[in-house]
Amino acid sequence: MSVLEGKVLVAQGGGPTAVINQSLVGAVLESRKFPQVTRVYGALHGVNGIINEEFLDLTEETTHNLEAVAVTPSSGMLSTRDKPDVDYCKEVFRVCQAHDVRYFFYIGGNDSADTCRIVNQESEKAGYELRVIHIPKTIDNDLKVTDHCPGFGSAAKFVAQAFAGANLDNRALPGVYIGIVMGRHAGFLTASSCLARRYPDDGPHLIYLPERPFKKTQFVQDVKKAYQKYGRCIIAASEGIVDSKGTAIVSQFTGGEKDSHGNVQLSGTGALGDLLSSFVKEGTSIKRVRADTFGYVQRSFLGCVSEVDQYEAREVGEKAAQFAIWHNLDGSVAIRRIGDYAVEYFLAKLSDVARHSTEMPAKFINRDGNYVTEAFKNYVRPLVGTLPTVRRIAAPKVKKILKRKKK
Amino acid sequence: MSVLEGKVLVAQGGGPTAVINQSLVGAVLESRKFPQVTRVYGALHGVNGIINEEFLDLTEETTHNLEAVAVTPSSGMLSTRDKPDVDYCKEVFRVCQAHDVRYFFYIGGNDSADTCRIVNQESEKAGYELRVIHIPKTIDNDLKVTDHCPGFGSAAKFVAQAFAGANLDNRALPGVYIGIVMGRHAGFLTASSCLARRYPDDGPHLIYLPERPFKKTQFVQDVKKAYQKYGRCIIAASEGIVDSKGTAIVSQFTGGEKDSHGNVQLSGTGALGDLLSSFVKEGTSIKRVRADTFGYVQRSFLGCVSEVDQYEAREVGEKAAQFAIWHNLDGSVAIRRIGDYAVEYFLAKLSDVARHSTEMPAKFINRDGNYVTEAFKNYVRPLVGTLPTVRRIAAPKVKKILKRKKK
Repeated sequence: MSVLEGKVLVAQGGGPTAVINQSLVGAVLESRKFPQVTRVYGALHGVNGIINEEFLDLTEETTHNLEAVAVTPSSGMLSTRDKPDVDYCKEVFRVCQAHDVRYFFYIGGNDSADTCRIVNQESEKAGYELRVIHIPKTIDNDLKVTDHCPGFGSAAKFVAQAFAGANLDNRALPGVYIGIVMGRHAGFLTASSCLARRYPDDGPHLIYLPERPFKKTQFVQDVKKAYQKYGRCIIAASEGIVDSKGTAIVSQFTGGEKDSHGNVQLSGTGALGDLLSSFVKEGTSIKRVRADTFGYVQRSFLGCVSEVDQYEAREVGEKAAQFAIWHNLDGSVAIRRIGDYAVEYFLAKLSDVARHSTEMPAKFINRDGNYVTEAFKNYVRPLVGTLPTVRRIAAPKVKKILKRKKK
Repeated sequence: MSVLEGKVLVAQGGGPTAVINQSLVGAVLESRKFPQVTRVYGALHGVNGIINEEFLDLTEETTHNLEAVAVTPSSGMLSTRDKPDVDYCKEVFRVCQAHDVRYFFYIGGNDSADTCRIVNQESEKAGYELRVIHIPKTIDNDLKVTDHCPGFGSAAKFVAQAFAGANLDNRALPGVYIGIVMGRHAGFLTASSCLARRYPDDGPHLIYLPERPFKKTQFVQDVKKAYQKYGRCIIAASEGIVDSKGTAIVSQFTGGEKDSHGNVQLSGTGALGDLLSSFVKEGTSIKRVRADTFGYVQRSFLGCVSEVDQYEAREVGEKAAQFAIWHNLDGSVAIRRIGDYAVEYFLAKLSDVARHSTEMPAKFINRDGNYVTEAFKNYVRPLVGTLPTVRRIAAPKVKKILKRKKK
């Protein structure tokens, strides 16, 4: 087999994560080791930068700076929400050909995998040798084939720590607290809200996921019951919760404002939190009801990263370069979980990862559809790694002297 | 002077912070060293626990557990929103007397200082020796006399890191991003949003504080101008921003729902963020507008703490015990800034700290009322300490081959 000589092109698409630059830097540094790689380009703003030939020459980037970018959250090469169709991908291919790109690595979710699939097809049709590798990334953890997605573990860690803090706050000043977590179709991130629970009465006490229809009356009943039991109640709800017809709950409030993809806008608004608050206020006699929407902070907060997520993100980037350049393969880098806990990397077919997404399996959700199972916790814990622990005062009670009635 | 023998009583009031337990543990461990201290009690839920005699005997708490609680955010002895009047304080005093409490340490804001002041007066009237010390705590940084308040530095660190992350996210996927930060009357926390800026075009680009009247037309103009300059715009706004008549801006949206103190509810709702979003959408042609309300996460997030804040919170607790037990004094522990940067602790009069709060001085706010000054940054940096840094890709641009027009 002759060696395929030419340029490497790397790009990042979709929503940023805390570790997406690890994958970028893994792919770049590994690619720079091969003599047949003539240059390593990075496209600005994902595929949009490719069709506009907005490239930076990453062969002339210092290693030190690349390492510093690797630990910086959000897409260092900037991103795009463009969702390329066949014509768009033909343009991507045309530009790749013009620049003698022979290896294209695209870091993103299932849309990015689909772009890889189509560009790969175009190159085959044209008889132009182009290795195309999709590098997985998403905080939603909703890609097919792979056991989990780089980016998810760090976002899950943020969510777990945020709820652990909210739980302590709510314990000090009791009431109902609702935290809205990202995730349009998959509830993995919302489900992770329970990971830093320590004491049996710690919140979240209820978790609502997009995988199960959200029923207002059941919700109010759940909250009442938890409040009665704990004297307070902490709720984690996914921004993507839907009713039994599949309509986003938030659209009851906003009238369903659409984003650039024609989807109902879920993030960047406090609407769902305020709506769930109003359900509790109307349906119970509880006075102190507060809702926070975690928003963009959960995917880009500077200074909260899972160590495991960090190195796995790095490795999927490196593996992309190795699969393409050593082995002349196309595909999507995927993670297989082995033992408890180790991983190995393999290459999935682009067509198996492209377009479609997964949801949480039934075994991860409890029967009532308002919490997660131990199986989920065992699945997610290694991805998040060590969490800060909390402690409570455990001193004995003092006997009353005045025996006053409770005010 | 004869030694005053009796019990120590410690309590925590108001909103929790990330380091309030350091003050608790500082006061408890220091108090336990004195032979004249017969027991160290902690009241559950602040003054509410005192009038109900809900005490834990912290003399029988292990040192290890106290140290573990010290690094746990939120009020380990739980908190209260009760704002005691004279009759309430008489009850507090009566219970203290019944339990032979001779030293009362109350960790909280200006309301807690006022409680200390009145309880101290009651003990003097009754001729009962009771040392009363207020230990400062607030994320708003709005206490009088002291240079700054323990709890603020850690919250400021969270806000700075959240905006640094949001800035990176917004740079990758440009638009307008609005982050709503806590602080009813004082803008210190909102102002801290700029601390982790590194590159000249980093956000936040605009900062709106409760100290300056918020004008909708000026706001829209400011956003337009910043968007034109940077192709994106990041805004930090205090939840407490008011119009020129002093009416909370958020009440234009909510109709002014009141909390238990009769104040307009600011936290735990996305209303202000959504309102400011609508101002931008209506007043400009910018399509991607997102708003996050940081909410309770900013004061209780598990795992984001300023080291300086942490040890200062510990020290004000220790100093409370020392001032009271070694020196037989009443007052509010205050911090004096010396050199650049060191502190010393002194005792302020309770009446100088009680009730009233401060705001940001004029020298910390720019002339247009939409940003902070270098003087503010110099004031706040030592309190927050080291922040994670970010780096950008700095590789050279590649020359276009196809010379396509920008799509």
